Amino acid sequence: MLDFLRLPERTTKPRERGITHVLDKGLSLDQVRDFLESAGECTDIVKLGWGTAVVTPHLKEKIELYQSSGIPVCFGGTLFEVCLRQRKLEQYLQTVRTMGMEYIEVSDGTVPMAEDEKIALVRRLSREFKVLSEVGSKHAGVVIAPYKWVESIKRELDAGAWKVITEGRESGSVGIYQPGGEVKEGLVHEIADAVDVTDLLFEAPVKSQQVWFIKRFGANVNLGNIPPEEVVSVETLRLGVRSDTLLTFH
Amino acid sequence: MLDFLRLPERTTKPRERGITHVLDKGLSLDQVRDFLESAGECTDIVKLGWGTAVVTPHLKEKIELYQSSGIPVCFGGTLFEVCLRQRKLEQYLQTVRTMGMEYIEVSDGTVPMAEDEKIALVRRLSREFKVLSEVGSKHAGVVIAPYKWVESIKRELDAGAWKVITEGRESGSVGIYQPGGEVKEGLVHEIADAVDVTDLLFEAPVKSQQVWFIKRFGANVNLGNIPPEEVVSVETLRLGVRSDTLLTFH
Amino acid sequence: MLDFLRLPERTTKPRERGITHVLDKGLSLDQVRDFLESAGECTDIVKLGWGTAVVTPHLKEKIELYQSSGIPVCFGGTLFEVCLRQRKLEQYLQTVRTMGMEYIEVSDGTVPMAEDEKIALVRRLSREFKVLSEVGSKHAGVVIAPYKWVESIKRELDAGAWKVITEGRESGSVGIYQPGGEVKEGLVHEIADAVDVTDLLFEAPVKSQQVWFIKRFGANVNLGNIPPEEVVSVETLRLGVRSDTLLTFH
Repeated sequence: MLDFLRLPERTTKPRERGITHVLDKGLSLDQVRDFLESAGECTDIVKLGWGTAVVTPHLKEKIELYQSSGIPVCFGGTLFEVCLRQRKLEQYLQTVRTMGMEYIEVSDGTVPMAEDEKIALVRRLSREFKVLSEVGSKHAGVVIAPYKWVESIKRELDAGAWKVITEGRESGSVGIYQPGGEVKEGLVHEIADAVDVTDLLFEAPVKSQQVWFIKRFGANVNLGNIPPEEVVSVETLRLGVRSDTLLTFH
Repeated sequence: MLDFLRLPERTTKPRERGITHVLDKGLSLDQVRDFLESAGECTDIVKLGWGTAVVTPHLKEKIELYQSSGIPVCFGGTLFEVCLRQRKLEQYLQTVRTMGMEYIEVSDGTVPMAEDEKIALVRRLSREFKVLSEVGSKHAGVVIAPYKWVESIKRELDAGAWKVITEGRESGSVGIYQPGGEVKEGLVHEIADAVDVTDLLFEAPVKSQQVWFIKRFGANVNLGNIPPEEVVSVETLRLGVRSDTLLTFH
Repeated sequence: MLDFLRLPERTTKPRERGITHVLDKGLSLDQVRDFLESAGECTDIVKLGWGTAVVTPHLKEKIELYQSSGIPVCFGGTLFEVCLRQRKLEQYLQTVRTMGMEYIEVSDGTVPMAEDEKIALVRRLSREFKVLSEVGSKHAGVVIAPYKWVESIKRELDAGAWKVITEGRESGSVGIYQPGGEVKEGLVHEIADAVDVTDLLFEAPVKSQQVWFIKRFGANVNLGNIPPEEVVSVETLRLGVRSDTLLTFH
């Protein structure tokens, strides 16, 4: 009905850029159905946040519900880290396979891991899965120098990572953000100067962050950790039909 | 079961005052049904926020779902502004008519418009629709003098606006609010001294703001941009059965 | 599927400790069903927040829906206070009985009550109900000395309260919290030194607060005013499968 409007061009599924990556932190099956109806078209991949899968009833059914709508699912990186810490990587991978998941997140945001070990894991897992490898600490106090970010990102991409996620958490207050949520602009620019942003997935749970990335890198920047109820809003920001990006695109 | 309680008198539908105006930013059809069940009685009008309509599947079905429960729907002002900017006003109005909408929002919070043009639009559209005309900027940096607010509000009411909306956005941090969300009390008092508050719809998405307006103007003040999940809470504030207004009304 | 993981031991229902107490501020019947599916197993008791019951359609049906899943329901303390203020205690109790509720909240966070009157009420109601008696003010400005908290808590437990709730509100910004949401650690330590924490239910609506209590008192601390959509997250914090408590438990 509103197709008379001129809108910024959007990539189409399956997307390599313009990805909206959504954080499901415990939706019920019917809530997933509601989400798929209203925002499924705008969603490229869903992460079952951190270890929520451990307490999710009907886990397989839930994952299949997403998958049957053409939306791949992956577990949160924290679950991977717990399994690794308990030396249960093989059982974890078996579960991932049983769930029919094609994507896997490799992170060391909480449990320290030697860089060589991480690279070896990314390399190995990339042969079987699309690896989302995450860079950055989940701890507010930890500041990593920009050149270190760039180095890690490049190594993980070289090792086969599909995309590298830049840490932001559910709160958008660590990693590439100041504790108050402002983008560390110098850091992001330094990363973007050295790496193709198509290979990055910026966690950006907060609107002001989404706006910043869309204005800086365009409608088809990859954004992650979007809360389910904000996916429609993110799409309107990409299309310039929300105040914050209207004058950018129209 | 709790009808032994004495409660502040509330106006009844269709309301001219005591209006709760709700911001739908992308509910699915089933979520609309849930909302109608729990909060439909307390809701007077629903706005499909900004340009969310552009990415809403089943748009007509969704609007009819609200309408069939006696709740009118209107598009967000930002969608109007995009259409105006693209010189597509007539197509926009045609869509509004096709959707069977009786309400229309006229705003210039993002795209500047000459005041005379806005007044002419309010005058024209008021002959066909109930016009919600919005005053105030969506930009945090823009401060408009109180006498200017009063002047604009009066002119738009004179031109036929059903209600004038005072800007607050989804965040409640611009327009009649400080960036931190506090009400600009002097501004609101100056407006309320000059205009009948029955003709105003105060955007008040945050609880502290709702409390302030209810305490200042009573249970039947018009409040806008209420998140769907907060409508029940707003009604309890109006009735004095939440702590913040208990001692005001009981 | 993930049962190869070693997790902290959790108490089982019906719980005397490890309780997750949830704040329902207006869910529809279908939303309750969704909630029960995804988080019912992790939920011990539901409070219909403040006076939301007054504007809840299908109130009895909603309460029965929770009860039929083995989850007891109680009204918010503010509703109790309004009834007391209107001298309608007996009608209120009659409603509680009609609803088949076994739990009742006794509070004086908004309407002042003489301490002897509160104690007498706790004593009387404890003969018929499991009493959740609440200590602390809902007003941000009110600071109560720690020894007074301890004294009130002890007296109310002695009078028969099942648990004493320490005030935090929906916002987590009063009572045992600083206005910014930080735990008043000295106060909580002083309380915990004097009272068995099993007898306490800490309102902790915000993640940082939940994390603090779980780290301080273990996986099976009693937490209250959890938003429905955060119950799964709280359970993951208790189990150490979210970053914030991973290194505490694994």
